[in-house]
Amino acid sequence: MSVKIYGMSSSGNCHKVRLLLDYLKYPHTWIETDTRHGATQTDEFRSLNPNARVPLAVLEDGSCLPESNAILYYFAQGTTFWPADKVSQAHVLQWLFFEQYDHEPRLAVNRAIQSIFNSIAERRAEFEANLPKGYRALGVMEQHLKTNVWFGASQVSIADIALYAYTHVADEGGFSLADFPLIRAWLGRMESLDGHTRMQLPALM
Amino acid sequence: MSVKIYGMSSSGNCHKVRLLLDYLKYPHTWIETDTRHGATQTDEFRSLNPNARVPLAVLEDGSCLPESNAILYYFAQGTTFWPADKVSQAHVLQWLFFEQYDHEPRLAVNRAIQSIFNSIAERRAEFEANLPKGYRALGVMEQHLKTNVWFGASQVSIADIALYAYTHVADEGGFSLADFPLIRAWLGRMESLDGHTRMQLPALM
Repeated sequence: MSVKIYGMSSSGNCHKVRLLLDYLKYPHTWIETDTRHGATQTDEFRSLNPNARVPLAVLEDGSCLPESNAILYYFAQGTTFWPADKVSQAHVLQWLFFEQYDHEPRLAVNRAIQSIFNSIAERRAEFEANLPKGYRALGVMEQHLKTNVWFGASQVSIADIALYAYTHVADEGGFSLADFPLIRAWLGRMESLDGHTRMQLPALM
Repeated sequence: MSVKIYGMSSSGNCHKVRLLLDYLKYPHTWIETDTRHGATQTDEFRSLNPNARVPLAVLEDGSCLPESNAILYYFAQGTTFWPADKVSQAHVLQWLFFEQYDHEPRLAVNRAIQSIFNSIAERRAEFEANLPKGYRALGVMEQHLKTNVWFGASQVSIADIALYAYTHVADEGGFSLADFPLIRAWLGRMESLDGHTRMQLPALM
């Protein structure tokens, strides 16, 4: 049985999985799942993922794996996107947790507000509260790149893929990268990888 | 050089690390770091962790590792708290990411508001918005325990340690576990492990 990915193409968390599988040329079936229309809230989808979120991978053995960064871990095993030594592995995970705790809740949420749900008028207070927190996370990334080429390991890893997802579309959530030259250079390195695709905004609802 | 842990004993993210090292009887030096008094905001601390957070592990080689769940990964390697097969490993990570994205930002934040900073009067809207989101996360856990003994693997793992941290003190953030009998039974299993300690609230500021 080949791998199936339930994902929404305009979601950075889903695009991470697409990027890794495309870089690896890993055969899979993508099942487009538009969360704007309740596709993850059905009983059928909840039987696959009780947390009612995409991305969701259905693995070769039929078991279901949610959480974008756990999916990256699974498919990166045995490839150069997961380093061999445990100190580097721990640092890759450090950035994956940073991404989900400090970065995604600001950059992804503001992008959803501004560009996916077009709800900035109703959610302005939340949007504005996220701006300094998101810029703080970008500052931590810029600081890291002063002495490192990649996040987590000495070569490109799933930490870079995870952080790329919402950083390369930061402007769609109202964040400017003008003051982050090292981040912009790192985005360029990511975009030169074979198999790379940028994420697209969805069609209007 | 022996391992050093910078941590605040009353922080669940820090207590996770203490629990694992105590279960493993892993020699280490604990450096108490009270974030209420700006101890993570100094230039000295930021030179160790630019993200200005605890816990922070200083490893045997002198390198610094932040992010509680990445620290758990590092010390669990080669022990029974990290499973051997990659599907189980991915499921352990699934729950570690769930903990940091859906659980900690609700249960830990409300505990900080109610019991660490005693700031519920000033932050009531945030506190109340977190309640349904936290109960939703507890519901996902309860659902999982209908067909599983542990989170992530067939035996206790770092996924259980991470989720235990703020679940066993849910009441200190205004969450009742009355409707979650399977979670209460799982907490009991955690508390029967050799070397276990409950977390204590800090002295008043």
